[in-house]
Amino acid sequence: MEFEECGIGEECGVFGCIATGTWPTQLDVPHVITLGLVGLQHRGQESAGIVTSDGSSVPTYRIHKGMGLVNHVFSEESLKKLHMSNLGIGHTRYSTSGNSALENCQPFVVETLHGKIAVAHNGELVNAARLRRKVMRHGVGLSTSSDSELITQLLAFTPPLEEDDTAAWIARIRNLMNETPTSYSLLVMHNDVIYAIRDPYGNRPLCIGRLIPVNNEGRGKFPTDTEGWVVSSESCSFLSIGAQYYREVLPGEIVKISRDGVQTLDIVPRTNGDPSAFCIFEYVYFARPDSIFEGQMVYSVRRRCGQQLAIEAPVEADLVSTVPESATPAALGYAEKSGLRYVEVLCKNRYVGRTFIQPNMRLRQLGVAKKFGVLSDNFVGKRVVLIDDSIVRGNTISPIIKLLRDSGAKEVHIRVASPPIKFPCYMGINIPTKEELIANRPEFNDLAGYIGADSVVYLSVDGLTSAVQEGIKAFKEEQNGLNGKTRRSSNGHCTACLTGEYPVELEW
Amino acid sequence: MEFEECGIGEECGVFGCIATGTWPTQLDVPHVITLGLVGLQHRGQESAGIVTSDGSSVPTYRIHKGMGLVNHVFSEESLKKLHMSNLGIGHTRYSTSGNSALENCQPFVVETLHGKIAVAHNGELVNAARLRRKVMRHGVGLSTSSDSELITQLLAFTPPLEEDDTAAWIARIRNLMNETPTSYSLLVMHNDVIYAIRDPYGNRPLCIGRLIPVNNEGRGKFPTDTEGWVVSSESCSFLSIGAQYYREVLPGEIVKISRDGVQTLDIVPRTNGDPSAFCIFEYVYFARPDSIFEGQMVYSVRRRCGQQLAIEAPVEADLVSTVPESATPAALGYAEKSGLRYVEVLCKNRYVGRTFIQPNMRLRQLGVAKKFGVLSDNFVGKRVVLIDDSIVRGNTISPIIKLLRDSGAKEVHIRVASPPIKFPCYMGINIPTKEELIANRPEFNDLAGYIGADSVVYLSVDGLTSAVQEGIKAFKEEQNGLNGKTRRSSNGHCTACLTGEYPVELEW
Amino acid sequence: MEFEECGIGEECGVFGCIATGTWPTQLDVPHVITLGLVGLQHRGQESAGIVTSDGSSVPTYRIHKGMGLVNHVFSEESLKKLHMSNLGIGHTRYSTSGNSALENCQPFVVETLHGKIAVAHNGELVNAARLRRKVMRHGVGLSTSSDSELITQLLAFTPPLEEDDTAAWIARIRNLMNETPTSYSLLVMHNDVIYAIRDPYGNRPLCIGRLIPVNNEGRGKFPTDTEGWVVSSESCSFLSIGAQYYREVLPGEIVKISRDGVQTLDIVPRTNGDPSAFCIFEYVYFARPDSIFEGQMVYSVRRRCGQQLAIEAPVEADLVSTVPESATPAALGYAEKSGLRYVEVLCKNRYVGRTFIQPNMRLRQLGVAKKFGVLSDNFVGKRVVLIDDSIVRGNTISPIIKLLRDSGAKEVHIRVASPPIKFPCYMGINIPTKEELIANRPEFNDLAGYIGADSVVYLSVDGLTSAVQEGIKAFKEEQNGLNGKTRRSSNGHCTACLTGEYPVELEW
Amino acid sequence: MEFEECGIGEECGVFGCIATGTWPTQLDVPHVITLGLVGLQHRGQESAGIVTSDGSSVPTYRIHKGMGLVNHVFSEESLKKLHMSNLGIGHTRYSTSGNSALENCQPFVVETLHGKIAVAHNGELVNAARLRRKVMRHGVGLSTSSDSELITQLLAFTPPLEEDDTAAWIARIRNLMNETPTSYSLLVMHNDVIYAIRDPYGNRPLCIGRLIPVNNEGRGKFPTDTEGWVVSSESCSFLSIGAQYYREVLPGEIVKISRDGVQTLDIVPRTNGDPSAFCIFEYVYFARPDSIFEGQMVYSVRRRCGQQLAIEAPVEADLVSTVPESATPAALGYAEKSGLRYVEVLCKNRYVGRTFIQPNMRLRQLGVAKKFGVLSDNFVGKRVVLIDDSIVRGNTISPIIKLLRDSGAKEVHIRVASPPIKFPCYMGINIPTKEELIANRPEFNDLAGYIGADSVVYLSVDGLTSAVQEGIKAFKEEQNGLNGKTRRSSNGHCTACLTGEYPVELEW
Repeated sequence: MEFEECGIGEECGVFGCIATGTWPTQLDVPHVITLGLVGLQHRGQESAGIVTSDGSSVPTYRIHKGMGLVNHVFSEESLKKLHMSNLGIGHTRYSTSGNSALENCQPFVVETLHGKIAVAHNGELVNAARLRRKVMRHGVGLSTSSDSELITQLLAFTPPLEEDDTAAWIARIRNLMNETPTSYSLLVMHNDVIYAIRDPYGNRPLCIGRLIPVNNEGRGKFPTDTEGWVVSSESCSFLSIGAQYYREVLPGEIVKISRDGVQTLDIVPRTNGDPSAFCIFEYVYFARPDSIFEGQMVYSVRRRCGQQLAIEAPVEADLVSTVPESATPAALGYAEKSGLRYVEVLCKNRYVGRTFIQPNMRLRQLGVAKKFGVLSDNFVGKRVVLIDDSIVRGNTISPIIKLLRDSGAKEVHIRVASPPIKFPCYMGINIPTKEELIANRPEFNDLAGYIGADSVVYLSVDGLTSAVQEGIKAFKEEQNGLNGKTRRSSNGHCTACLTGEYPVELEW
Repeated sequence: MEFEECGIGEECGVFGCIATGTWPTQLDVPHVITLGLVGLQHRGQESAGIVTSDGSSVPTYRIHKGMGLVNHVFSEESLKKLHMSNLGIGHTRYSTSGNSALENCQPFVVETLHGKIAVAHNGELVNAARLRRKVMRHGVGLSTSSDSELITQLLAFTPPLEEDDTAAWIARIRNLMNETPTSYSLLVMHNDVIYAIRDPYGNRPLCIGRLIPVNNEGRGKFPTDTEGWVVSSESCSFLSIGAQYYREVLPGEIVKISRDGVQTLDIVPRTNGDPSAFCIFEYVYFARPDSIFEGQMVYSVRRRCGQQLAIEAPVEADLVSTVPESATPAALGYAEKSGLRYVEVLCKNRYVGRTFIQPNMRLRQLGVAKKFGVLSDNFVGKRVVLIDDSIVRGNTISPIIKLLRDSGAKEVHIRVASPPIKFPCYMGINIPTKEELIANRPEFNDLAGYIGADSVVYLSVDGLTSAVQEGIKAFKEEQNGLNGKTRRSSNGHCTACLTGEYPVELEW
Repeated sequence: MEFEECGIGEECGVFGCIATGTWPTQLDVPHVITLGLVGLQHRGQESAGIVTSDGSSVPTYRIHKGMGLVNHVFSEESLKKLHMSNLGIGHTRYSTSGNSALENCQPFVVETLHGKIAVAHNGELVNAARLRRKVMRHGVGLSTSSDSELITQLLAFTPPLEEDDTAAWIARIRNLMNETPTSYSLLVMHNDVIYAIRDPYGNRPLCIGRLIPVNNEGRGKFPTDTEGWVVSSESCSFLSIGAQYYREVLPGEIVKISRDGVQTLDIVPRTNGDPSAFCIFEYVYFARPDSIFEGQMVYSVRRRCGQQLAIEAPVEADLVSTVPESATPAALGYAEKSGLRYVEVLCKNRYVGRTFIQPNMRLRQLGVAKKFGVLSDNFVGKRVVLIDDSIVRGNTISPIIKLLRDSGAKEVHIRVASPPIKFPCYMGINIPTKEELIANRPEFNDLAGYIGADSVVYLSVDGLTSAVQEGIKAFKEEQNGLNGKTRRSSNGHCTACLTGEYPVELEW
Repeated sequence: MEFEECGIGEECGVFGCIATGTWPTQLDVPHVITLGLVGLQHRGQESAGIVTSDGSSVPTYRIHKGMGLVNHVFSEESLKKLHMSNLGIGHTRYSTSGNSALENCQPFVVETLHGKIAVAHNGELVNAARLRRKVMRHGVGLSTSSDSELITQLLAFTPPLEEDDTAAWIARIRNLMNETPTSYSLLVMHNDVIYAIRDPYGNRPLCIGRLIPVNNEGRGKFPTDTEGWVVSSESCSFLSIGAQYYREVLPGEIVKISRDGVQTLDIVPRTNGDPSAFCIFEYVYFARPDSIFEGQMVYSVRRRCGQQLAIEAPVEADLVSTVPESATPAALGYAEKSGLRYVEVLCKNRYVGRTFIQPNMRLRQLGVAKKFGVLSDNFVGKRVVLIDDSIVRGNTISPIIKLLRDSGAKEVHIRVASPPIKFPCYMGINIPTKEELIANRPEFNDLAGYIGADSVVYLSVDGLTSAVQEGIKAFKEEQNGLNGKTRRSSNGHCTACLTGEYPVELEW
């Protein structure tokens, strides 16, 4: 709940699709990408864009971008413009401030000496400032403040043209990885190929799916053919387009996706034996619960967080409930482990949105009541354990507690299914300033009193980590199709915002 | 789930507010009405409108209406136009076809010999066709197809002006009630008064709330003052504006709400001892779960429906789950009574909306998969009881079942928390044609086979009725403030769409 | 120029079309009406609407209305909605204040006991207030403030149904004319007929055109067939749709236009021998110069006004020019009669529009300079006679004079091609309040000094009247197709705003 | 008329403004630029943009761009965003095809090693293709197809930073001029300076104005102070903002405009003694008639073209008229020289616009009749000389002639106030393909017969050239403030589209 209130929890989503048949294929690539982006909408609601290619030797690129939700940006009409395409990439972006927002929309398309390339990017370059200076020192003017333009220019100016295009692209991308260690999950479209790239630290997710024929009965169960390949920030977008989860892109891996299939070109190692650093907040908050990372479903991790919380912070109470909807898996996990009955105490008014209203004093004091209805019959006279996914600034849980008490709750105990956030993120996550974070403020010493709860306990960092690690499945080499290349462990996680331990040294 | 798919489940919402202080009052009446309408948004998303009055002896009416959601129609700017008002009424409307939609937007404002009156209406007049002819025979041209204009003209032309304005309004409204028995919950604003009227059969809901001072700590707990009165289709809109539930308007009751408070002018009896006929689908589907009807919370009725279903239709299984979100209270009730574990198996993609896309064959066959993610880890290899709130046409549950099976469910048993719909409604609810209703089709004989379930059972009509009746609380005379008038039973319910027994004789 | 600045000069336009063939006919009725309305756009830019009928015995009416210019309101898509029609009427409306503007859009469609009728109206009922009371006393609520709704209700409630529909309509319309003498030019569509009606005083224009086949070479010259009939506020809209001017509707005339042709049903006489009262400002300002009234082209009247002005108010000067564009015919007339050379001194910036900008002091002081460019090479060191069509408030000509002087004009003499406006209009024209009119203010005594001119002279009322009368051609009976009915003179004109002599006694 | 029909005649407009006072100054820079762009709107209606700077040492740039007319793009709200600025540049762009149009909007802002620079450009680089390859070979990716981005990148990468910023800018701009000879008029904003640059051939116009205090009486006549400087494609935009014409920027001149005034940094000579090549079509068609080029008003040139045409191509007739509005100065000139009476025969319907309607056969055959009304009373039975500014494709004058004949003209003689266009332009003007140009088609041999005129004669190239040359005034050194630098002749004109003689050798 509070991540949402704080504006934490949105980053970007990337999605690509390529049809294996020759054009005109059965596969409606623009529609597939649009639905894929709808499935990634939770990662960014500010803008959306798609670039498609006919995949010919002198490809025609078609592009459509706009501000707003995917369903708003892409109409029947705009999809027609993207028609007659065999492959394409798309992007949804999180909200930023700034008046020239449309200019920052992705994917970026640029003409280079290598031909036209299109780039979609999720992440934030830790050394962006230094790289910008470097590129400008080379005489290039940068027209946006986005890392994506920077990446595109880095790809554009090195290395020189070669005979073997694939070798040239490996060199170009390796060069990019040498320039900047993290964080980026990238799709680069060039002619009839999509390169799917994950930074060596694997900070942002990226995975591949296989489009299989859909028979009249619905999703095919035993497909024998491949109709195309998709690549996505999260696997949750696969179900709606009839794709099967294939595998993750590994940290540092450069994957070439073409009509001929999926091929690992290279796996760029991290320097000096650093562990990988997948953002643990993808599990905690960003990802959709039905997405799969490292072989496990996000929902299961959240449920285990709730179970772990019941072990770490039990309480004598009559029932356990959730601040809907993000905390529900943890609340069910807590109920399961604690033996307390799970009951709904709040219902969400889905029409409230970010209300325009600058209400007068009277209405402002009603606070979060606008967002929730109270199911008082379910808890009058009861002792309630309320699970929330976070307390970041501390100013949204307080009125909820008051609401429950006013409606008849006897006691309200807060259990938070993640550890307190204490440090800024430099890898793509928008986190309030250190001063705003409740964990760094004096009120943290008596948090229960401050928010009006009978008690409040956060999940420990160790508890979170073990809830994540428990479900990571051993990857099988053959399933990954890595062709004998040695695969390094990818179970390291970035917990920098919780612990202050950053995966790479920060430049200033 | 399926009500929504079928377009069932939207009707209209009405909301009124009056400040007790003299203007300029502390109460921001247009904001209160806007928030009140947001709380009724689930009853109609097509259009919204508000009319306010300064409440002076020669009142200035201000009006703003528009197509779309309340938050879309009312901006800071449009609310400014409604400013400087002491009372007002608002309306949200459900979607209709037709190109002149804006003209049908409510509230209606007309100038009559009695002065300007504004009308907001929820319901549908069973004898509208005959009444239209009657009004036109009097020489009146009707510019819209809405019942609201008809009601307004009926109020306008009878009876002649009298000395005592209140007596005249009682006569006018009684005359309206004589002309048409049901269904309507009405708000009529005239000068500085709002008349709140519920038809003698009480088919549509209407209730009153009291605005109390909000202190710095949030909602006041022991208010001593009344800042104003509100009247609403449902009490769920009260929390967000700091109002306390006061009481229902009774079937046939004419309530005058003014600066001086709430006064029952009259209670018009039904002819020939008919029972009242509150629409039972308000409990089953339309209302928000936190609304209160007849002294009980809607959520509790739905939970009891689930419990009753567990008694009527038990099944040997591993877990019980819900088609989110409308069936969740019933699913929790079923779990409770059956002892089966409650688990989530689907997560809703809230960004899908009513997707614009007319996809090609391949994507169309993916069906509901666009709307849901599958939490397969929670049910692989398990026998699932899935609770839905309805099966109306039968074409949405089928792909959900297939989705669960494809994702690993061992068995899928469907339990429906309401009885099958078999008959049309003539009192305001949009129901598919008799031929489209699954209960009237041959497939109903082997419904489980048709939809691909291992078993399927609906709740019985008796089961539903008893789940509703169980919680109806005795109303206390003094609480209702009915000043000694005899209150008749209001626990009769309209089950016409389930049983074909209509509360009044139908005209053709 | 100044009429425009003052908001004078917009009223409404009505346009109707009927195809003579049976449907599906060659004639694209919705397109013809749209183009016809574009040709009447100068009469009103606030909103536009069209209602079409398939002309069957149980007709289907299709309607589309919207705020803004005709080209904005009617897109390809909205025209499709009006398709499959054999007749229709349209309307453009002038700007009013008020927030419920769309509700006032015409044509009005109402269902009555006689069936559906659609009404489009240009004019203003002089006794509207009394008529509204009368209608409301009958028990009718009025939902808008427009005269059109009033007219529709008057048509709806009298007289009762009769066997002979045409006789009934004559009676209904005669009844309307008895209730209200002026001003209205009306189109009433009912089933497959359009009734074209002009009030007995003929205050607003209305004329009929014949649609002739268009051959491959363009407009047909010697047509032998009639493809349809059109009826319009002004004949200027005929050229763009390939229609030939047929004749005016006479004051008090009721014309029935159907597939069978044009038929005069009746000519309702004025009471007590009043002369007709065609608004003289249609000649002076409202109408497009290529329109024909009373057998003469409006342009010619304006040119004669200029000639007359040269006779009434000669001046020794070097050149004569115009405030573009409305004063140009008069300026050319003045040049012709005076022998002075006609030269352009100002060019209009057509992109200025009604600029949104609330500029700061510096820019506000630049005044009309935003609207005009100065062609200084044409008049440096010269004595200029500048013709304007009006000086109403006196605050726009002043900066123009200063502009010319600053740019090198030696003398600037103003000649105004119409008499000063001194009185309000109650028949549809929006005129500033009496206090705002320069002719009623002390500054009028030294107008030249006040506006900074070397001299200023208005055209006399007699001069205007004679310029109008001179060109009125004798109408031939056979040409009018009046079938032996006696035609009364229509050369009386309303000059109320100039002289205070109103054509009918005013009610208060 | 026909230039407009052919889409000829739109290019871009640039406008800059700098306040001489220190901020906060009296001058509202964003408003001044907006009004300046409105004055240049005839040069481009597709999009508009403004970038402002606070002029501090670490400047904050504010930017707003959008599709459509200036008045549409800039609202009160968007102007607020640009507030608190001391200088800025703006741009209006002509219409192009392509779906990513907004990305091509100017001004361009890029971050470079020299800091942020903003660029606005009018013109087209003759060697753009080669330059794009050169830039890309350097490793730069280009994200748009616009020359403006190319110019910006050329400015960005050369030369390296120097101590003396002004010297560095001279070097950078000289380098740009070395790379590309023509055509460009450029504004480059950097920190608190605007560089105004015209290519060595002077192909596109650019001039400077001085903002003077405006007193209460309107425009100041004898200003003693300078409030700011403006620079504009045309001087016609000066009047509306209270600016005085100061002087032209010379071919090859680099002007630095700062708070300290206007300073010539350099005048870059043309190679091998080429004459300058100001586009003669700026006189013929593009520019507004009140603009001043080379010391003369455009209107006067057009009038002389008409006079010259009367000498070259006299005809025995009764009257001379214009195809409004662009041909009016020439028609008045023709009338003057020939002694024939000037009369209006057509009036323009200003509401037609680029009508959306794809009419059926019948309406399409009505052709230009939609755009014009016919003032037949003015020419029935007369021999008409009709002056048009151009006949390009030959398909628009034909229906006009038919219209006049059908309305009663006895003879129609066409005189065209410019020579026939025969060759493509590579310097920014959109001209139909060679095959479409009437002058290159067989029909040209009997043009009068083809278009249905009694005779048709074009102005000769020599006639046009002499009409232009006649008014070019000797520039005075001191007035130009060129500080002793030798000024070269600027009276060479580009007539490539008429003669095929291009000012520079074309690359392919």
